[in-house]
Amino acid sequence: MKMIMADLEGVFLPEIWINVARKTGIEALNLTTRDIRDYDVLMSRRLAILKENHLTIQDIQAVIATLDPLPGAQKILNWIRSCSQFIILSDTFEEFARPLMAKLGFPTLLCHSLSIDDQGNVTDYHLRVDNPKQKAVQAFQGLNYQVIAFGDSYNDIGMIQAADQGFFFQPPDTVVADFPDIPVTRNYDELKSRLTRLLNDS
Amino acid sequence: MKMIMADLEGVFLPEIWINVARKTGIEALNLTTRDIRDYDVLMSRRLAILKENHLTIQDIQAVIATLDPLPGAQKILNWIRSCSQFIILSDTFEEFARPLMAKLGFPTLLCHSLSIDDQGNVTDYHLRVDNPKQKAVQAFQGLNYQVIAFGDSYNDIGMIQAADQGFFFQPPDTVVADFPDIPVTRNYDELKSRLTRLLNDS
Repeated sequence: MKMIMADLEGVFLPEIWINVARKTGIEALNLTTRDIRDYDVLMSRRLAILKENHLTIQDIQAVIATLDPLPGAQKILNWIRSCSQFIILSDTFEEFARPLMAKLGFPTLLCHSLSIDDQGNVTDYHLRVDNPKQKAVQAFQGLNYQVIAFGDSYNDIGMIQAADQGFFFQPPDTVVADFPDIPVTRNYDELKSRLTRLLNDS
Repeated sequence: MKMIMADLEGVFLPEIWINVARKTGIEALNLTTRDIRDYDVLMSRRLAILKENHLTIQDIQAVIATLDPLPGAQKILNWIRSCSQFIILSDTFEEFARPLMAKLGFPTLLCHSLSIDDQGNVTDYHLRVDNPKQKAVQAFQGLNYQVIAFGDSYNDIGMIQAADQGFFFQPPDTVVADFPDIPVTRNYDELKSRLTRLLNDS
């Protein structure tokens, strides 16, 4: 049996932190896993910036609530879920993602979590496990699933390489240059064609 | 982080085979895991009955398409999915479940699959893995999730006992008598109260 696993931001949703940077005017929040591969370094930097700028979880959620899924995301997700089981693997945080997951019809999301104090300050973040995407793929293979996985960035490489069938969706050129052997899809039509073929392969 | 895992039939959906028995008038199809604990024995018997009665996958799907989720199931599921991640663990088959999963908004379902020939005859069934529910709970614990699990019958015991918090939902008296130490919820209000408490426990 097959299981489709996919990244969230850059695939179905806009990059959350980039949009928080845009709407708050804080340039330094523009960094993503595309720029800094070490997620721990990236997150520590982001939390320090939030603290310096006195931004609470409510401020960030107010920005996130104004975002929408990428054009066509809901349609392709509905199609995927009508013909296969599907789980999203993301390095986002439950507390950030929830309003946007509602807009996607609550597909299952495996990600991380935050600590928030009584004043709404984000005091810490909790990475659920090391290499969470790769380990999720391997856990499902252990349950006898053939995993099809796709994502757009460096933090998807472990997942894509561990999957039975893995490929990029709309990756930046730098990522493609670093991993030239991984197949690339560039829009939802190409994604649908590839998934149709992979789901029908026995 | 927490993950809620639950059984499907008897919890959110009516028992599919019992309804196929009712609508086709084939008494022998009334058997479920509540009656025969060995799922392999049960399924071999069911497939033999389908063959004897010349019932195709189309016949069965036509019956299943007339079924609806249990009253209140969609509402409680929407609530669960708005406040936690959630996966259904079932011993049903993808081919049977799909029309009903659409009515539930396509929560992720881990189950089994069938082989169907060109004439629509169900020629075989494939159990994805031994003890699938228990192994799914353990796989998620390996991904650093605390698992809350509930179900109504014998094939849920491994899942309920492996979970960090496990309990029955609307179990028959025979199951409760055999496992008196497992807590019991008897309707969606009780389920919601218990889940609220378990999700808020740190």
